[in-house]
Amino acid sequence: MGLSEVVREGDFVLLYLDLKRTFLVRAKPGRELHTHKGVVKLDDVIGQPYGFRVMSSTGQEFVVLKPTIRDFILKMRRATQIIYPKDMGLILSFTGIGPGWRVVEGGTGTGALTAFLAYHVRPEGRIYTYEVRPEFLKVAEENIARLGLSDFVEFKLADITEGIDERGVDAVILDIASPWEAVPHAYEALRPSGSFASFSPTIDQVVKTVEALRAHGFVAIEVVECLLRHIRAEPGKTRPEWLMRAHTGYIVFARKALPEQA
Amino acid sequence: MGLSEVVREGDFVLLYLDLKRTFLVRAKPGRELHTHKGVVKLDDVIGQPYGFRVMSSTGQEFVVLKPTIRDFILKMRRATQIIYPKDMGLILSFTGIGPGWRVVEGGTGTGALTAFLAYHVRPEGRIYTYEVRPEFLKVAEENIARLGLSDFVEFKLADITEGIDERGVDAVILDIASPWEAVPHAYEALRPSGSFASFSPTIDQVVKTVEALRAHGFVAIEVVECLLRHIRAEPGKTRPEWLMRAHTGYIVFARKALPEQA
Amino acid sequence: MGLSEVVREGDFVLLYLDLKRTFLVRAKPGRELHTHKGVVKLDDVIGQPYGFRVMSSTGQEFVVLKPTIRDFILKMRRATQIIYPKDMGLILSFTGIGPGWRVVEGGTGTGALTAFLAYHVRPEGRIYTYEVRPEFLKVAEENIARLGLSDFVEFKLADITEGIDERGVDAVILDIASPWEAVPHAYEALRPSGSFASFSPTIDQVVKTVEALRAHGFVAIEVVECLLRHIRAEPGKTRPEWLMRAHTGYIVFARKALPEQA
Amino acid sequence: MGLSEVVREGDFVLLYLDLKRTFLVRAKPGRELHTHKGVVKLDDVIGQPYGFRVMSSTGQEFVVLKPTIRDFILKMRRATQIIYPKDMGLILSFTGIGPGWRVVEGGTGTGALTAFLAYHVRPEGRIYTYEVRPEFLKVAEENIARLGLSDFVEFKLADITEGIDERGVDAVILDIASPWEAVPHAYEALRPSGSFASFSPTIDQVVKTVEALRAHGFVAIEVVECLLRHIRAEPGKTRPEWLMRAHTGYIVFARKALPEQA
Repeated sequence: MGLSEVVREGDFVLLYLDLKRTFLVRAKPGRELHTHKGVVKLDDVIGQPYGFRVMSSTGQEFVVLKPTIRDFILKMRRATQIIYPKDMGLILSFTGIGPGWRVVEGGTGTGALTAFLAYHVRPEGRIYTYEVRPEFLKVAEENIARLGLSDFVEFKLADITEGIDERGVDAVILDIASPWEAVPHAYEALRPSGSFASFSPTIDQVVKTVEALRAHGFVAIEVVECLLRHIRAEPGKTRPEWLMRAHTGYIVFARKALPEQA
Repeated sequence: MGLSEVVREGDFVLLYLDLKRTFLVRAKPGRELHTHKGVVKLDDVIGQPYGFRVMSSTGQEFVVLKPTIRDFILKMRRATQIIYPKDMGLILSFTGIGPGWRVVEGGTGTGALTAFLAYHVRPEGRIYTYEVRPEFLKVAEENIARLGLSDFVEFKLADITEGIDERGVDAVILDIASPWEAVPHAYEALRPSGSFASFSPTIDQVVKTVEALRAHGFVAIEVVECLLRHIRAEPGKTRPEWLMRAHTGYIVFARKALPEQA
Repeated sequence: MGLSEVVREGDFVLLYLDLKRTFLVRAKPGRELHTHKGVVKLDDVIGQPYGFRVMSSTGQEFVVLKPTIRDFILKMRRATQIIYPKDMGLILSFTGIGPGWRVVEGGTGTGALTAFLAYHVRPEGRIYTYEVRPEFLKVAEENIARLGLSDFVEFKLADITEGIDERGVDAVILDIASPWEAVPHAYEALRPSGSFASFSPTIDQVVKTVEALRAHGFVAIEVVECLLRHIRAEPGKTRPEWLMRAHTGYIVFARKALPEQA
Repeated sequence: MGLSEVVREGDFVLLYLDLKRTFLVRAKPGRELHTHKGVVKLDDVIGQPYGFRVMSSTGQEFVVLKPTIRDFILKMRRATQIIYPKDMGLILSFTGIGPGWRVVEGGTGTGALTAFLAYHVRPEGRIYTYEVRPEFLKVAEENIARLGLSDFVEFKLADITEGIDERGVDAVILDIASPWEAVPHAYEALRPSGSFASFSPTIDQVVKTVEALRAHGFVAIEVVECLLRHIRAEPGKTRPEWLMRAHTGYIVFARKALPEQA
């Protein structure tokens, strides 16, 4: 990526006002973004370098940022609760998913985690993602296409608790209501020593999933929750922010071992 | 990766006993791993598929896992405290670092974060890592070589608080004692809209870094800490683990904006 | 307190709908409480036993609870942020404040912590509370009177950072903007081995206070923060609540030692 | 309590070296405390004022503190895990227990919480504490006697899951393995609107207890966990401590409502 990349027609840009107010829009000629802090003309943005500070009609400065995968995910069209970036990062660092990995995902939803995983297995890896609700799968396909990640994803209108087609995959990642029902299929699909991860909001789902993993020969079973706290850093008045998300979900990790020998 | 990959001579394997007792060893003929649970002969492992359960001399079962990047990092030879996988994952998901990114790292240490970043920017990206202590750089080079990641890393015996050679990089990641001193150089090195992250154990470092970022035209400044809690999931007796790491460090994130226009 | 205590005219009652919707009202003849769930007539409550379930005009059930000191404090008229019950409990258990203790409080505010402390030192102890803003002191006096705790509190319109009149007190508790300025006076006022506690929202206040305590011969200096997380316990869907208060303040504790001997 | 209270023969004193090294000993003539930092002669302490700095045989300074109820509790002879002061404080502030309250406790253990509660209901209140293991009850009685709190406690060698003798009590506090079995008895024993609290390490215990509370007409059911984090406050290097207790237990709170009317 060059030193002074400019915004081209059709690019997605993130207009940044402050941490809580950012706008993901496509830079199209004639388009306007209406905010409570005035109107930003995308014509003022096209041809300018990223990082550029554009003025709205009311003189408010917005910074034109090139969206990262996190920005895209947080702004995605979605119908369901998505896994948070903090949890996505943890799934990546704990499973080892990276360039070249072949990953099965259960519960595409609207494709947020799919996008994150696809981004990280490029260019040789691939995500096989299962979803039973056709309307969600459609939104997910559109979301993934918008990010230019379609080449790395295979969408499957199928119930992962009924079976997984792939074999020898490096990881299976679940975000479904009854992950324990997919555990036997995950075992079949994974290469020996491959990584399993499952995200669940309730402790009851966790306990059932852990039991299923133990029963199916998984090892290195680990359950974590990740709490993210924001700090307001200002000389003389530094303190944690007043509110935080106290819970998103638990993540269960495991590795596939081969059966004991007779 | 195939369905039944076998352990070859010279491979690193992770011998798994339980979550707290794992052993990373090279599978060399004639080698023995001595543990308090008996001796494991690597000859018993070579030629077996990953996921295999091997018996020690005392009849204790160990599972032969193929180490993930996380396993490698946690077992690396190191002289310094390393950034934890939970924080590495967060750095990845919050900055957008992924395949193809060019990243400057300040504070190689013994190369743990370097390895993680190199693993994730493959095959087209590159890590430029700065370290002032030659003995650390040497250990880091060896660690990175052992992981087969040397092609993706450029080691620099230089002080990042004195300057950065690269220009137009996608991200600058710091793990040094005085990150605020490197902020002006990070600004120079980054492409506009590029990502900055800095890891620091103390709140004083955070406040100084945030002040330097504000003074140098960074936006989207965000300070977080990530608390990871382990859960013991067992039917009828599920509870969080008694102890946890209460602190590793704070992470400061920011994005480079262009200067305001005259 | 008897087996079937009844609500008498003039009693304060807590009308409970759910954890987030409770109403503290005085049971006066003819009075009505208007809620979005209908009107509760206090005439329907007077003469009934505590614990009684009263119906509103729309048929909604409210439970008539006898307010605890916590209920009173959370419903107090206030102009300022109060210390939370979780932190009040910690102050009590960490300092040893209990029946009979003589306690100096700096920063009466509208009297929330004053009420809690007064309640707990009864019947022989006493709270000496300092406040510089007369309008706050007035509200505090009214609040304390309403709770029937006036006999245990001495209100002082004075700046605790200028001095403390009392000597030999068992504890000094501060909730002021610059607690470090009151530390020398706290030292003078405390009996040797007496307890000090100071509540502050920012880490900067904490550091200054700790420095002042070290400089003035305090020992057992301890800084804590208390995070309270609520759990939604429901068979099959138990999980922590989504949101929590991430920060209220830090509490600094210390004990007075005598000076080193010459 | 006077200005310069002195240590008398037979007093318990807390010899303070640092936060992690404190020693609770009885000041008896001729007695010596042997520590890894030298020997402290109690003869050097008797007759000195509290807050006095005494030298050990190796020249190490110890501060002579008058133990608070928290110090006593943390140093108590015990056979079981005790409830932590942070949780004790929360129980107090959330239930309203204070001077004059009559409280039933289930699960005396070695009397740590008993002591805390007895201390706080003085001088008119009373604790009725149930324990099935006679050897524990004996230790508890000794512990309570040592603190001079015996007048406020009635010890009962009985199983609280079988029944509670008292009626109209202000609060019932449980720290037993199966609190749900004591819930019906707690309902009988409590005055209407009285407070219930139960401490449990596992989430399974919590769920069962909450279900029992709902089934028996309790309201204001609230489940919390309290996380305490220590901060190392030092100018220029302030940060949370590295390790913390991640879990002690959950606390379930509730209030007794009267049954719905026919």
